[in-house]
Amino acid sequence: MNNGHKQVEPSVFVIFGGTGDLSKRKLLPALARLHSTDALGPASQVVGVARNKEHTDASFRELVQESLTSFAAELSKDHVEEFLSRCHFQTIDRSTKADFANLKDRLAKIEAEYQLPGNRTFYLSLPPQAFASTLEGFQATGLNREDGGWTRVVLEKPFGRDLPSALKLNETVHEVFEERQIYRIDHYLGKDTVQNLLVLRFANAMFESVWNRDRIQAVQITVAESLGVGSRAGYYDSSGAMRDMIENHMTQLLTLMAMEVPSAYEADAIRTEKIKVLRSLAPIKPEAVVFGQYAPGKVDDEEVQGYLQEDGVPEGSQTETFVALKLHVDNWRWQGVPFYLRTGKRLPHRSTRIAIRFRDVPVRLFETMGGAAMDTTDILMITLQPDEGFSLHFDVKKPGSSLGLQRIPLRFQYKEMFDSMPEAYQTLLHDVLLGDQTLFVHGDEVEEAWRVYTSLIDNPPDPVPYESGSWGPPEADQLAIPERDVWGPAGD
Amino acid sequence: MNNGHKQVEPSVFVIFGGTGDLSKRKLLPALARLHSTDALGPASQVVGVARNKEHTDASFRELVQESLTSFAAELSKDHVEEFLSRCHFQTIDRSTKADFANLKDRLAKIEAEYQLPGNRTFYLSLPPQAFASTLEGFQATGLNREDGGWTRVVLEKPFGRDLPSALKLNETVHEVFEERQIYRIDHYLGKDTVQNLLVLRFANAMFESVWNRDRIQAVQITVAESLGVGSRAGYYDSSGAMRDMIENHMTQLLTLMAMEVPSAYEADAIRTEKIKVLRSLAPIKPEAVVFGQYAPGKVDDEEVQGYLQEDGVPEGSQTETFVALKLHVDNWRWQGVPFYLRTGKRLPHRSTRIAIRFRDVPVRLFETMGGAAMDTTDILMITLQPDEGFSLHFDVKKPGSSLGLQRIPLRFQYKEMFDSMPEAYQTLLHDVLLGDQTLFVHGDEVEEAWRVYTSLIDNPPDPVPYESGSWGPPEADQLAIPERDVWGPAGD
Repeated sequence: MNNGHKQVEPSVFVIFGGTGDLSKRKLLPALARLHSTDALGPASQVVGVARNKEHTDASFRELVQESLTSFAAELSKDHVEEFLSRCHFQTIDRSTKADFANLKDRLAKIEAEYQLPGNRTFYLSLPPQAFASTLEGFQATGLNREDGGWTRVVLEKPFGRDLPSALKLNETVHEVFEERQIYRIDHYLGKDTVQNLLVLRFANAMFESVWNRDRIQAVQITVAESLGVGSRAGYYDSSGAMRDMIENHMTQLLTLMAMEVPSAYEADAIRTEKIKVLRSLAPIKPEAVVFGQYAPGKVDDEEVQGYLQEDGVPEGSQTETFVALKLHVDNWRWQGVPFYLRTGKRLPHRSTRIAIRFRDVPVRLFETMGGAAMDTTDILMITLQPDEGFSLHFDVKKPGSSLGLQRIPLRFQYKEMFDSMPEAYQTLLHDVLLGDQTLFVHGDEVEEAWRVYTSLIDNPPDPVPYESGSWGPPEADQLAIPERDVWGPAGD
Repeated sequence: MNNGHKQVEPSVFVIFGGTGDLSKRKLLPALARLHSTDALGPASQVVGVARNKEHTDASFRELVQESLTSFAAELSKDHVEEFLSRCHFQTIDRSTKADFANLKDRLAKIEAEYQLPGNRTFYLSLPPQAFASTLEGFQATGLNREDGGWTRVVLEKPFGRDLPSALKLNETVHEVFEERQIYRIDHYLGKDTVQNLLVLRFANAMFESVWNRDRIQAVQITVAESLGVGSRAGYYDSSGAMRDMIENHMTQLLTLMAMEVPSAYEADAIRTEKIKVLRSLAPIKPEAVVFGQYAPGKVDDEEVQGYLQEDGVPEGSQTETFVALKLHVDNWRWQGVPFYLRTGKRLPHRSTRIAIRFRDVPVRLFETMGGAAMDTTDILMITLQPDEGFSLHFDVKKPGSSLGLQRIPLRFQYKEMFDSMPEAYQTLLHDVLLGDQTLFVHGDEVEEAWRVYTSLIDNPPDPVPYESGSWGPPEADQLAIPERDVWGPAGD
């Protein structure tokens, strides 16, 4: 992310699962957009790889065209056509070593044809069970080796489903690739507003100077979804909110909020600080966790069914669709400051936000005066989606001859100043092409994050049913900054 | 200002200069508004006093009615009529002691008629040369004494025109009234946004925690006027910007910005802290001052003449219409932080604002990245008029895959949330009636303020001509936070 003026080198970008959903919805549009801004690299080529033996270069290009029509409609016809001419298809059966050899030959041929120096990215958009065989295929054919150019591999989550499986996965990957070649994607890190957390903190002395236990009373990270499990019940029921949200995305947000100033703005320095935060997390106490599962209710004025009534959810499932928990970062900066994480499906509205609640004034000079909203503290609200922006809520004098206080918000929304926010995948794939690992998750981070949650995942509390359209089980209210404080007495 | 729930006691409000301009434009409308919200006190009466022998109760009420039609048009007919019935007129020649005796009799009669307990406010809206004779009249007739009720006197600026005359004036006033009876008005202190400076600081721990030399690089107070001297040349030429703005209003703003937290929110505690600030002001160095005088130019696309060409300005006048100066508050909180005061006529637009410029980050992590606005620091801008509000300018990441920074403003304008701001005089007269001296200037403050500026007033630098419509002489630019920093590269 820190290399706006760096040039992308020519390369081949290989997508395993190239005809899949993620490829069509995110990867191909992101690559086409990069191409349209000359950020894909001169003469760079894209190779879709999939088991489907019916596909040809031509039919794959049709698929790419459809994908762009649906998900990158703003691209000009010329840009689309030029991008299509760079797309190729190669069939592969991951269990057949010969197919990996074929792929290797094909890549060599493409590189010869377009005079490319041998730089390769392998994007593994594959189900977890396909990882091992694919990595073996790389190993067997030497596709992991770097001959003249660089070789990078991009991994999609999940990075395991608990600590032992994560350790095993890392071990497997490290047998084939070095950590410097590995780009683990957590697409939350590609969001501009998430990267902005570091800019907010480290480019603005005013904020950094209050960013500690002396000034901050609590931090709350909320990822609220209004949707239910939809058609993903099969995957979701074996995962739950802990694995789907808390362990990865939300823990990443926490580390960015809590980390020390890195020695430089570069991948190793930043990831070192993030890992330090994870290592400082105190064990989670049972009373600091509430699991919930949505029951029928009303969201956006529509009656919706409960989780147990959703298609594909096993009878009596104990999977959590809501988690609230309180973490403590036991270091000099944060000791005693609760970090509340809260996520759930079927909450009142979709919203990802971070609330920083500042400590109250030591003496309430204005307390004796009538009609004032004295029980609220200052809040910095960072909204990551939707309506990306900031608001700082603090007290001013209510106009009039008496001295009442009123909470007001200083506000900024990105859409006021900027036309559009880039897609996370565009940012992240660009960084892969540039060789910048800053926004990617280090193997140690993955392990430390699982370590934090392992005992909770092994011994989960029973989920408490909550009404759809509520903010989760009432038990969770003690694990949250009161909404009144977050939004002020006058609502948002 | 801190007594919204206190009741105003019944009283007589006496305006010396009752038929004058200030009375018609500000005092009578403010009193009528207080009356309309039951804040004038039950059965309270208003007595206009002036030399004009033609006036009667009836003709004075006509004058009051005209004043309200022009300056308090929102008041209902019923409210106006009831207020008019409370207005009385008494003629007085300030050099005639008998007239003071007549006034005393008249007040006693009114108090008897309306069963008032003898509480009296005397508002002296008089030219400075009339002060002494009026005070003598009070003394001679015992009108200054408190018999049963309270007696308060309200003084309008100027409180002298240099240190010796201010000392003399205080002495004269103190012969007749005690400090606790004296309400010196600086109408800037009645503005809601000015009172809000204290609320901002002392009700919001986040701001107070950065309010010091460790975090703040500079403070700038600007009172810019786009108008010229207009019809006030006679007064203005003998006063100048130092006496008209710097010594009173702007120095008051400075003390509110810089003062320590008072032990309580009440008049004595607050005025004590303000006086401490004034006593900490370091002597002003000659190189830290620029005087200017406006030359012809263009304001709001209109050609305007220079100060020397204005009607009533003496040939070759050396009166300053612009002042920029740098002050230092030499105490533990502020040592080394410049406080820039800047005021002038015929500047680009009308604006009163305080800019707090925070220190830059100690290490610029993002410096090596392309295209960023790295040379700006965070600014908190408090706009007192027009468009009262706050904005906090800080850096965020510019959306896009490269890491450019961009200054954005978090904003709040009062008009977004509140219908109207009360008039300063309404606030201040209400406080007089409540006996709250918080927003009034203590005699010691007056003396200390003059002491700060005495050597400068005695030995003023020659004013440098500046083009109307500019920000003053270029020499003043070193005595200001650069406009670029205050407003950010993208303008406001």
